[in-house]
Amino acid sequence: MTNIDSAFPMPRVGRLPSGARDAISDVAGVTVGHLTLADGDCQTGVTVVRPHAGNVYTDKVPAAASVINGFGKSIGLVQVSELGVLETPIALTNTFGVGTVANAQIRQAVAANPQIGREWATVNPLVFECNDGYLNDIQALAVSEADYLAAYEAANVDFAQGAVGAGRGMSSFSFKGGIGSASRVAEIQPGQRYTVGALVLSNFGRLPLLTIAGRPFGKRFAEQQASETGPEKGSIILLLATDAPLDARQLGRLSLRAAAGLARTGSVYGHGSGDIAMAFSTAYTVPHQAERAMPAGAMLHEARIDKLFEAAAEACEQAIVAALWRAETVHGRDGHVRQAITDAIPDWQQWLMARDF
Amino acid sequence: MTNIDSAFPMPRVGRLPSGARDAISDVAGVTVGHLTLADGDCQTGVTVVRPHAGNVYTDKVPAAASVINGFGKSIGLVQVSELGVLETPIALTNTFGVGTVANAQIRQAVAANPQIGREWATVNPLVFECNDGYLNDIQALAVSEADYLAAYEAANVDFAQGAVGAGRGMSSFSFKGGIGSASRVAEIQPGQRYTVGALVLSNFGRLPLLTIAGRPFGKRFAEQQASETGPEKGSIILLLATDAPLDARQLGRLSLRAAAGLARTGSVYGHGSGDIAMAFSTAYTVPHQAERAMPAGAMLHEARIDKLFEAAAEACEQAIVAALWRAETVHGRDGHVRQAITDAIPDWQQWLMARDF
Amino acid sequence: MTNIDSAFPMPRVGRLPSGARDAISDVAGVTVGHLTLADGDCQTGVTVVRPHAGNVYTDKVPAAASVINGFGKSIGLVQVSELGVLETPIALTNTFGVGTVANAQIRQAVAANPQIGREWATVNPLVFECNDGYLNDIQALAVSEADYLAAYEAANVDFAQGAVGAGRGMSSFSFKGGIGSASRVAEIQPGQRYTVGALVLSNFGRLPLLTIAGRPFGKRFAEQQASETGPEKGSIILLLATDAPLDARQLGRLSLRAAAGLARTGSVYGHGSGDIAMAFSTAYTVPHQAERAMPAGAMLHEARIDKLFEAAAEACEQAIVAALWRAETVHGRDGHVRQAITDAIPDWQQWLMARDF
Amino acid sequence: MTNIDSAFPMPRVGRLPSGARDAISDVAGVTVGHLTLADGDCQTGVTVVRPHAGNVYTDKVPAAASVINGFGKSIGLVQVSELGVLETPIALTNTFGVGTVANAQIRQAVAANPQIGREWATVNPLVFECNDGYLNDIQALAVSEADYLAAYEAANVDFAQGAVGAGRGMSSFSFKGGIGSASRVAEIQPGQRYTVGALVLSNFGRLPLLTIAGRPFGKRFAEQQASETGPEKGSIILLLATDAPLDARQLGRLSLRAAAGLARTGSVYGHGSGDIAMAFSTAYTVPHQAERAMPAGAMLHEARIDKLFEAAAEACEQAIVAALWRAETVHGRDGHVRQAITDAIPDWQQWLMARDF
Repeated sequence: MTNIDSAFPMPRVGRLPSGARDAISDVAGVTVGHLTLADGDCQTGVTVVRPHAGNVYTDKVPAAASVINGFGKSIGLVQVSELGVLETPIALTNTFGVGTVANAQIRQAVAANPQIGREWATVNPLVFECNDGYLNDIQALAVSEADYLAAYEAANVDFAQGAVGAGRGMSSFSFKGGIGSASRVAEIQPGQRYTVGALVLSNFGRLPLLTIAGRPFGKRFAEQQASETGPEKGSIILLLATDAPLDARQLGRLSLRAAAGLARTGSVYGHGSGDIAMAFSTAYTVPHQAERAMPAGAMLHEARIDKLFEAAAEACEQAIVAALWRAETVHGRDGHVRQAITDAIPDWQQWLMARDF
Repeated sequence: MTNIDSAFPMPRVGRLPSGARDAISDVAGVTVGHLTLADGDCQTGVTVVRPHAGNVYTDKVPAAASVINGFGKSIGLVQVSELGVLETPIALTNTFGVGTVANAQIRQAVAANPQIGREWATVNPLVFECNDGYLNDIQALAVSEADYLAAYEAANVDFAQGAVGAGRGMSSFSFKGGIGSASRVAEIQPGQRYTVGALVLSNFGRLPLLTIAGRPFGKRFAEQQASETGPEKGSIILLLATDAPLDARQLGRLSLRAAAGLARTGSVYGHGSGDIAMAFSTAYTVPHQAERAMPAGAMLHEARIDKLFEAAAEACEQAIVAALWRAETVHGRDGHVRQAITDAIPDWQQWLMARDF
Repeated sequence: MTNIDSAFPMPRVGRLPSGARDAISDVAGVTVGHLTLADGDCQTGVTVVRPHAGNVYTDKVPAAASVINGFGKSIGLVQVSELGVLETPIALTNTFGVGTVANAQIRQAVAANPQIGREWATVNPLVFECNDGYLNDIQALAVSEADYLAAYEAANVDFAQGAVGAGRGMSSFSFKGGIGSASRVAEIQPGQRYTVGALVLSNFGRLPLLTIAGRPFGKRFAEQQASETGPEKGSIILLLATDAPLDARQLGRLSLRAAAGLARTGSVYGHGSGDIAMAFSTAYTVPHQAERAMPAGAMLHEARIDKLFEAAAEACEQAIVAALWRAETVHGRDGHVRQAITDAIPDWQQWLMARDF
Repeated sequence: MTNIDSAFPMPRVGRLPSGARDAISDVAGVTVGHLTLADGDCQTGVTVVRPHAGNVYTDKVPAAASVINGFGKSIGLVQVSELGVLETPIALTNTFGVGTVANAQIRQAVAANPQIGREWATVNPLVFECNDGYLNDIQALAVSEADYLAAYEAANVDFAQGAVGAGRGMSSFSFKGGIGSASRVAEIQPGQRYTVGALVLSNFGRLPLLTIAGRPFGKRFAEQQASETGPEKGSIILLLATDAPLDARQLGRLSLRAAAGLARTGSVYGHGSGDIAMAFSTAYTVPHQAERAMPAGAMLHEARIDKLFEAAAEACEQAIVAALWRAETVHGRDGHVRQAITDAIPDWQQWLMARDF
């Protein structure tokens, strides 16, 4: 049976091989850190993805985004779209934490680069969000600037998934959602391989539509429960990293392939779901200062990009599965509970292999 | 077994009910016509979708498009994006037929509206295309203006699918592709229903990725054949019609949901695939002349749009399946053959119900 | 001499008549408030544009934006682009004040609508910014949430311009810039008039390129001063209000015409200048709750929109002039000074009428 | 008096130096050819811009476009936006000539590259248009495929401007318009210079708004004539070439600066005007075949791009002036006449220097 992951028991999707960790950190240099707030009505946090270990302001990272469904409150996309680079780490948090985390990113960038806002231009914070209001008292605006810094400091190639960091209070398909990650290795041509890693903040999905490895899980479960969950209110952020040498235009193309992976889990990019994807490359950096040399490596020929697209779609689909399977059941605000899918369906392996959906 | 269509034996996807014809013509007023060229190396044609029976120039149709992957040579999208209306029928043909069919649309519009290019502005032809060069001698530029007019005249609520019209020479997942159509009925709230119809010109897909109703058909078939088909070279045009009162912005949102249906069949929006979706509404028209009254009906509240999104995704996925299942085997240029999937896999019903993929 | 404004002595541009106040508040219902921080190194503030006097969350305002040059750090555009409505007042502040002002908008919306983040979705803050770091110690992040609320409370049809509110520390063409406003009345057809009002936060412009009413002011001044100011580092936010019944798509078109007015003052949309325009209509509102009736008035026929485009371009150009002419000289951070253009060129009226530029 | 061009008597705009020809062909490798049809009611033609002398399909040219106002019927933009390259020469013609010229481009590309539509993908024709229906019997669809080829063969660094090629039947500000070209040299940093060349097909403009070198020419003329010309019905295509090493994203930014030059001549991007800009770079090419080496030169640092933006705006404004000043009076369809501005205002030099506008 090929569609159960061997290392960690979860359904496996797609056909491409994973990297060593099956995580975004399989792309060399990328690290992830969390700060989790879990106390009664407060179930939220911050997750930081660092594209490299250095100063991201002076050594900017090529990037681009696709707004699949713009019901979202992120900050930073306008400038990334214009200039094609990141200049801060990528932060994830709850919808009402964006302003505070942006402030933290600004102060962090200024501390590292005191010329910002003086001789140099300002800095573009980059914060994505989902609404964790079902489990978390989002009206409390509990996330602090220190929380961002703690998540940043915690960044590592090994990192937790599920109900951690920004994922703490998130829901997905009426189950517990949160942080998931995966990677796929694309063989562009014989012997030439690149890795595409995905990390999602998964907070979307209507139960009846839940699809796992092509199987209509949600349909069966929904019939069991005789419950429909109403219109989509969630959101998902899909981050892609790759070591392939792509320019911003190509990264924009890559980022849109997240939508393919997303659709396969049962999403129709619901009205109320802020579905935003971003891709960055670690193959080179762009210097802040014009006096420094610009990168001069060749970009990947467009005709070689297809396997990266497939890897991106697969990695995103797998990361969504990971967010569900690695989550634990969480009790939050006002007695609300989100069950882990593994608690709700302990016999999921049988379901997955069942013939009659 | 729910996933075999009862009327016509093909796999059925999704959970929403279909309209009476399970075709785009379930949206009242929409008709479809074909002109098929099938003679030796010439395997191509024209398909026309008429949004209403009247003069589309004087009574324009609200519409918007999503370019999922812009490897395509259509004409007309720039103006539709700016003005939010169609002013000709929608034509489909092969890549090298666009210029000729555009000319035919211009002459047709001028004949019906002699003020065009005189007192009035010009007219915006709207032609989409896919590359049928595997089966068809596309270099011959065989499509004529008369072919467009014949397809237009043939438009009817009942129309053929598969290897007809613009679909004659198209391939999909290494099988015979072409024209497919489907519809889904969305119950927005109790008692309030709208129909979303889809028509696709399906010419995309790498065999190993083919997915039918969630099942990895292509994987199995690919292993049987020990063949990989190389990078994506096809394309797909996905047209959506609805009787829901949506404005152009909302139709743009609806059109993007085609990407969800497309992904579920195995597409990652491959590099070389021109994947373009367009949605139009039949709920009202916009007069060409400023002296006439503008429509004054209320648009659908955004919070009611989710079911239409689901219907759009489902209808597109089903239409792609229909294009495969309704196609016949075609012999074309230089001895090239594309088998109908039903010829290639006569026991597809067993495959579909099989447990062990 | 027609090109000196009679009421307030400043150059007048264009040919359309102004509204009674020559300000954005000529569009009925629109009010503007400021909170100014002016103390030594702290020269900054907040400006709030309220599209109507009611609850903007429950009665949303149709709107759309154009990113002319996306070197900017605003929050809120992603959702406005998707949904075509504002749901908070529009706030302007310095670049590093965005996060804090967004937090203030969130808390204000939650206070007025306690269902937000509970039964209802969250709220989309909308904050634009420019970098006032030349005069203001932007690294201090001096703007507080209370400052936003004070600006909001101060909103009135009569409001100050120049070095006030968010404009306090802004520079334009090496002179003092800041807040400027203007309006133009467009006669769509005989007897049918609509007003287009503009409000700008003007912080852009390289002195040698300064153009006033078509005259190359900057060229002459630059020669006098023998100084070139280097690459563009500023930004400008251009807000347009109209009482014309336009939908979001049409408002997007209107907003782009701000770029025409901007260009006429000497901008080439410089690399480092975040040039963003937004337009909203006061002709109708969109209810938050699907249970309430949607607006059903007819939109303006597209063929009648041209005069609004002209009004938008003129009003923006005039508002930029107003920002320069209504500013006072400001002494700020580290002894930096920006002279009012009227102090720097007391004989500007002679310049304007001079023949030999 | 600096604002009369010395070589050719026309108003000169801006402050940057021109290249040797003050034409788009100052960018090394770029050539332009025309085919003019001028016979009674038939006043139209084709203009071809060749970005380099080689095979543009096998050696593609980096490019990007900005749709300033999408009331236009061009073909080719969808793919250029996705892939960031041209693969045919750029063709200009009348609105109803697009289909035929596209066919000609297809046949030309196939003749040079017989693999097209066989082993290779198809080809993306690129044709822009304006509506010359006032002077030309556009309903006749007079342009032939041979006309395109003749224009292509005629391409040269020296080429005519005004009422030639695609410009033959075009009108601008109620005067004769057509083809205009100009160039500006930008000194990025001391000793490092790049050229930006512009070529416009100018068919836009409402007389009362005509502005030349900042002077309200149209206002004065309109008062003389006591005529208003009604809503904008024209269009303008603005092509930019540069030898600066820019990638497609940067070229997209550059192309938008055409809008600044356009605005300064009196355009507000009128509703009915298809205003489309495209920029390409000659600094490198992108190979069609993945087996060939990708270019590996460094792109220009973004902080050095500002002078190119200024050059683009200036060159476009100058090219529009050139189209007016180099046009001759043309008598066309049904006795319609468009006067050359130099015939209509023989004392334009006095007007330009006059003080009292």
